[in-house]
Amino acid sequence: MKNILVLGAGRSSSALITYLLDHAAAGDWKVTVADSSQEFAASRTLSHPSGSAIKFDINDTAQREYEIENASLVISLLPPHLHQLAASDCLKHKIHFLTASYLTPEMAALDADAKKAGILMLNECGLDPGIDHMSAVEIISRLKSEGCRLEAFKSFTGGLVAPESNDNPWGYKISWNPRNVILAGQGTARYIDNGVYKYIPYRRIFRDIEHITVSGYGTFDGYANRDSLAYRHFYGIEEIPTLLRGTLRQAGYCKAWDIFVKLGVTDDSFVIENAERLTYGQMIRAFLPSTHSTGDIISDLAAFCGLEVSDPAIELVKWTGILEDTPTGIPNASPAKILQHLLEKKWALRPGDKDLVIMQHQFTYVRGAQKEELISTLVVKGDNAVHTAMAKTVGLPLAIVAKNVLNGTIKSTGVMIPVQKDIYEVILRELEACGINFTEKVTQL
Amino acid sequence: MKNILVLGAGRSSSALITYLLDHAAAGDWKVTVADSSQEFAASRTLSHPSGSAIKFDINDTAQREYEIENASLVISLLPPHLHQLAASDCLKHKIHFLTASYLTPEMAALDADAKKAGILMLNECGLDPGIDHMSAVEIISRLKSEGCRLEAFKSFTGGLVAPESNDNPWGYKISWNPRNVILAGQGTARYIDNGVYKYIPYRRIFRDIEHITVSGYGTFDGYANRDSLAYRHFYGIEEIPTLLRGTLRQAGYCKAWDIFVKLGVTDDSFVIENAERLTYGQMIRAFLPSTHSTGDIISDLAAFCGLEVSDPAIELVKWTGILEDTPTGIPNASPAKILQHLLEKKWALRPGDKDLVIMQHQFTYVRGAQKEELISTLVVKGDNAVHTAMAKTVGLPLAIVAKNVLNGTIKSTGVMIPVQKDIYEVILRELEACGINFTEKVTQL
Repeated sequence: MKNILVLGAGRSSSALITYLLDHAAAGDWKVTVADSSQEFAASRTLSHPSGSAIKFDINDTAQREYEIENASLVISLLPPHLHQLAASDCLKHKIHFLTASYLTPEMAALDADAKKAGILMLNECGLDPGIDHMSAVEIISRLKSEGCRLEAFKSFTGGLVAPESNDNPWGYKISWNPRNVILAGQGTARYIDNGVYKYIPYRRIFRDIEHITVSGYGTFDGYANRDSLAYRHFYGIEEIPTLLRGTLRQAGYCKAWDIFVKLGVTDDSFVIENAERLTYGQMIRAFLPSTHSTGDIISDLAAFCGLEVSDPAIELVKWTGILEDTPTGIPNASPAKILQHLLEKKWALRPGDKDLVIMQHQFTYVRGAQKEELISTLVVKGDNAVHTAMAKTVGLPLAIVAKNVLNGTIKSTGVMIPVQKDIYEVILRELEACGINFTEKVTQL
Repeated sequence: MKNILVLGAGRSSSALITYLLDHAAAGDWKVTVADSSQEFAASRTLSHPSGSAIKFDINDTAQREYEIENASLVISLLPPHLHQLAASDCLKHKIHFLTASYLTPEMAALDADAKKAGILMLNECGLDPGIDHMSAVEIISRLKSEGCRLEAFKSFTGGLVAPESNDNPWGYKISWNPRNVILAGQGTARYIDNGVYKYIPYRRIFRDIEHITVSGYGTFDGYANRDSLAYRHFYGIEEIPTLLRGTLRQAGYCKAWDIFVKLGVTDDSFVIENAERLTYGQMIRAFLPSTHSTGDIISDLAAFCGLEVSDPAIELVKWTGILEDTPTGIPNASPAKILQHLLEKKWALRPGDKDLVIMQHQFTYVRGAQKEELISTLVVKGDNAVHTAMAKTVGLPLAIVAKNVLNGTIKSTGVMIPVQKDIYEVILRELEACGINFTEKVTQL
């Protein structure tokens, strides 16, 4: 009997664990779900005969080594900075290791050792990063094999809320790590546009946006996501003149979020004094320049932003409650933490809410003498607040790889992201069988 | 014979080392100057009979422990992140430790151990931080003893260039760590204004400025510096309604520097691809939104900033050469590093140049029923590019403390900053004797 160890039973784990338990008997697996809360882990395994839920402390070296040594494959859904601890033990005991997180230089450095140990250490195998890579590389390789010359590739992904569950003006609810929602865009985004490098600092990331239309769902804001340049190599498109990866939000979201960025309240680098006694409104006042002070916080904020009081962006900010004189109630918190605490409540999925994942790839290329555009779009809707589209699209690729590594179908070893055909093909075909599939539209330009 | 070990022989070390060598015979000291370059260290000791210059590697544990064990007192001018290594060894061998750098939580944690070991571990004992604390606390304690009630304290310091050596439109040359000039203001500045906390994020730090007039020198820009709030406790003014610490620059500097911030070129967190082949102009274009592209980089930049092409701020940026099509020539560099490399050349002090240090404290308080303002101003001019005002004002406080610790005048132990009377009085009186003194002006309001 093979033992699959899942580290972390958070938001994105439901579909992954359900899949593994559903396939456990056929594969002769045991599924061990390890979380800092045993109760939380047990809420995922639900007394399934093949499941086991344990209380787990990643920093307890003895427990970590024991559990990893007794596994055949480890899937880590832990916060990114904790993966390396588990990965090192996996290498030591020659255990396969899978994660949906970004490949780090530290992880990449284990490649030769992983190959020597005969194990696969697969990163970025969730939704974004994950399905975006797999689906993009499959199309790129098809277009190349058909002799097309790529001119541009733009790809946008968003974790949103389904229209029928959308009851707030931001069109947003939290279906993944809320901390990442608050800190999104910090740093400098990098991409290439018509052969020219482009850099967008944080202060402009929610301003320099594109408008993306998704058939049946309307028009969305798309803002540049992290370092697009790094993927030219992985995708085998080193010479492409235009490459941009971005994030989708409901139209109007970016203009409103930019107000938080402009104020400075997304800063996580310092602790606000007396934060628990401060009201949200007082915190916002502390970020408004002294020159903006008529006494009415909404007028002051609008003037600071150069907007009318009636601007929808001001309305969105007002809706969050952050202009109100309610104490934050959180001691020793950064502004980002206070904002997160508030939005986690306002943007919570209600039990019956359906989230929505949208991914859209836009390719421009020349076929013979003809310029064409190919739009490939994925739309996935969640079942409810637990079985979300986000959990499915992040978790199922990991689960499918786990199955196919353990049954011997996937034989690759080393540290990688899922841009190899033997890996992405297996995943994409089984995702299609689960109803997670792209629709394509080609237009001659 | 007592041995004073000076770690680091960089820009700020000249006055410190000269003072120590001048007083070595009288104190029966040996002065060991340790630097990663033996040649550099020797250029400071200049074959003085009491001096010794050694090649030193802070990460060589054996050498570090040997040199520290054989010292009576250690002065560290190393980059801030390296102080802790030296401080730990000082604690182990019960050796006094002095630095001009900001007190860190790690250093503060050594307080009880330092007291037990009977050693002084003094931080922030340079110019800013340093002389600013000492002079401010002396005035605050005098005003308090006279029964005055403090209403506001604002303090500004700048390392500038003397009018007779000012041959560039920024009115700036580099007299201290150039990296700090480029990264200045990153993070969120914090202060208190009329009882209300104020936070200024990086994107506004060079915009929300004050204008400071210094008699005989004109009007300067003053921007908020780091965390002013932390000093209420050290200064014994926990209840003061207004407290702001800031940095001085020539009028117009901040508006021009804000263009670099707005573009994003002060980011040190990522490496620019092909940086060595890129020209400065291409780098700036990469930061300009694609929507600003008439072909003329100066017009595009001005339009992006909402300024006229003839605006002095645009002229200042143009003067640096950063809009020109000259290759940067630096491989694997961040935008901040590229900007630093350029400005180090453009803003270099020529051998005969005199730098200028200006510090101004502005106190508002009530004496009896009378509101008064006290302006206390320090102006120090350098001799030349080596014996700078910056080196004097950073180095002499450290040198004076060293002398007075070794001769038994200063007896305090523990980790601290120079806000205790037994320390600041000795320093301020001897600085006055060296011609470094404040002039005061009181006005009834």
